[in-house]
Amino acid sequence: MTQGTPTLAAGARKVTADEVVQPFITEIQEACAALPEASRPKMVAFLASSDPAAVKYAQWTAKTLERDGMRFELREVEADDLDEAVQKANADTSVHGIMIYYPIFGMLPGFSGASADHALRDTVSLSKDVEGLCHFYRRTLYRNQRYVDAEQARKCVLPCTPLAVVKILEHLDIYDRKLSDDSQLSGKTITVVNRSEVVGRPLAAMLANDGATVYSVDIDSTYIFRRGKVEHVSAEATTEQFVRESEVVILAVPTDSYKMDPSWVKEGAIVVNVSHFKNIDGDALLATRPGVRYVPAVGKVTIAMLERNLLRLRENFAGCSRLMWDSSTGCVEPAPPVSSP
Amino acid sequence: MTQGTPTLAAGARKVTADEVVQPFITEIQEACAALPEASRPKMVAFLASSDPAAVKYAQWTAKTLERDGMRFELREVEADDLDEAVQKANADTSVHGIMIYYPIFGMLPGFSGASADHALRDTVSLSKDVEGLCHFYRRTLYRNQRYVDAEQARKCVLPCTPLAVVKILEHLDIYDRKLSDDSQLSGKTITVVNRSEVVGRPLAAMLANDGATVYSVDIDSTYIFRRGKVEHVSAEATTEQFVRESEVVILAVPTDSYKMDPSWVKEGAIVVNVSHFKNIDGDALLATRPGVRYVPAVGKVTIAMLERNLLRLRENFAGCSRLMWDSSTGCVEPAPPVSSP
Repeated sequence: MTQGTPTLAAGARKVTADEVVQPFITEIQEACAALPEASRPKMVAFLASSDPAAVKYAQWTAKTLERDGMRFELREVEADDLDEAVQKANADTSVHGIMIYYPIFGMLPGFSGASADHALRDTVSLSKDVEGLCHFYRRTLYRNQRYVDAEQARKCVLPCTPLAVVKILEHLDIYDRKLSDDSQLSGKTITVVNRSEVVGRPLAAMLANDGATVYSVDIDSTYIFRRGKVEHVSAEATTEQFVRESEVVILAVPTDSYKMDPSWVKEGAIVVNVSHFKNIDGDALLATRPGVRYVPAVGKVTIAMLERNLLRLRENFAGCSRLMWDSSTGCVEPAPPVSSP
Repeated sequence: MTQGTPTLAAGARKVTADEVVQPFITEIQEACAALPEASRPKMVAFLASSDPAAVKYAQWTAKTLERDGMRFELREVEADDLDEAVQKANADTSVHGIMIYYPIFGMLPGFSGASADHALRDTVSLSKDVEGLCHFYRRTLYRNQRYVDAEQARKCVLPCTPLAVVKILEHLDIYDRKLSDDSQLSGKTITVVNRSEVVGRPLAAMLANDGATVYSVDIDSTYIFRRGKVEHVSAEATTEQFVRESEVVILAVPTDSYKMDPSWVKEGAIVVNVSHFKNIDGDALLATRPGVRYVPAVGKVTIAMLERNLLRLRENFAGCSRLMWDSSTGCVEPAPPVSSP
């Protein structure tokens, strides 16, 4: 298996997810160990497909959560029964978090394909949405509203994969902690390749919320995200130009055919490969670009963020079956249960 | 202008929207007249495009609501500012209903095109959603949950165009009033051509909720809707076969090129043309198919339903700025305002 040490350009370094995730695992395990068995965070996950990637992800979440002292229950259901099953888990106060393995390859009454996935995301109660993908959290994210409630006692959850990237960048010290929360990336230029609703788009918005200038590149268009503002970029500008300007490059293209030319990457830049496919030749990058730090995979950090979200939802909403939504603030707070008759 | 009376097959009849809408207009005007000026239903509508169809629709809603004694305010805003503007109207307790003229030809931070429209629909508070298009009402519709609250004191609003079709069918007496609400169409077969998220799909579900067997036909697939169940139809079955079986045919294809062959329509059937284009040659239909009743347009009934929804939202939620959502029932109720500090 030994292939010899690959050549590295001066100061270039590969950064593993293991290196980043370790402090989070410790923190999560300590938080769980401090709780009595019966009130440990409990997640219910729904699997409604036999897609091998979904099955594998389900097994991996199970193993990780159990290792860390959390309770995990996988419910295998028909796509037709998912809405009802999610509704039941919403109503169960012993459940702290709900996740669904997408995509759903079936029909819901009145929905199919992507619109079924969309409808299901919004069916998960915001008090249990570990993935942070329901309308409420999408909207707080894009509005840079960081708390669920007006008292700012309950922080919003953020979608796991984009959050994992943020934590990786924090670990690599590109956030300027001397500045306020929403300016710690100011002066930084970041390119995010791919603009999916689950990863690329929310990540671009989150980095812009923290002050960065973000080029959000997709097959047919590029937008610049700057703190709540989005502008279209002229069709003549190329991805190569954006990448050459960027201190950070995020690669999230879900195909094996996309390969970024390593020579585009600035010296000293950070490259994070979020896709399950390698969107760049990491060895060539590390061998040729001085000072580059390359993160080849983020999956382990993503699962840690799922666990962190579960802990946060438990803190924010444990035992709460009613939510009060205030239309004048757009904020939500837990409400006391109805007294039984 | 006189073109001579068109030939009619025995018992065939054209049914105008005017004939159907008259009792609703009377009911709406009486309800408004009974209210003091200052508390009459107030709708705020957002126009963020110069699309001529949207502008025309805005003028038409304004005229109709004012004629009937309702208050109407058109707010022209940039697409970028829509989210904020809707949030402000959500928070304004003097506003009873909000509508947005789609599509939005712009960008929201993090959204574009269809996904911007989708996000905006969910930004309108369910307490003001006159169009019945936010996730809460889409879901109550597909689940056949007819009330907002557990006490069943507040009826859900339904999307205006599908609701207009239901009212037209009621007017034409195909609902069997001796049966319970959710069976009044049992034994009836209905074909709905086109399955958009705004008209065809919810309409198919609503008719199925009332007991009908509904063929929902779209360019690339047909589904049968039967009270909360949806099944795929084999690719060999043709639209012609479905229509030949159907007592009711709904045409909602948004193009001028789609024309249904009138000879497919069963004797005595009802044909409702919902599209702005004529999806069938009405004169040929009326001349050749005995007993057919043909409704060439539904727009006036749709606007009356918008007004009815506005009245209902005012009754359900007037003055309420906080909503209580119960995760164990999926129901919502108005909550008292916070006492000022």
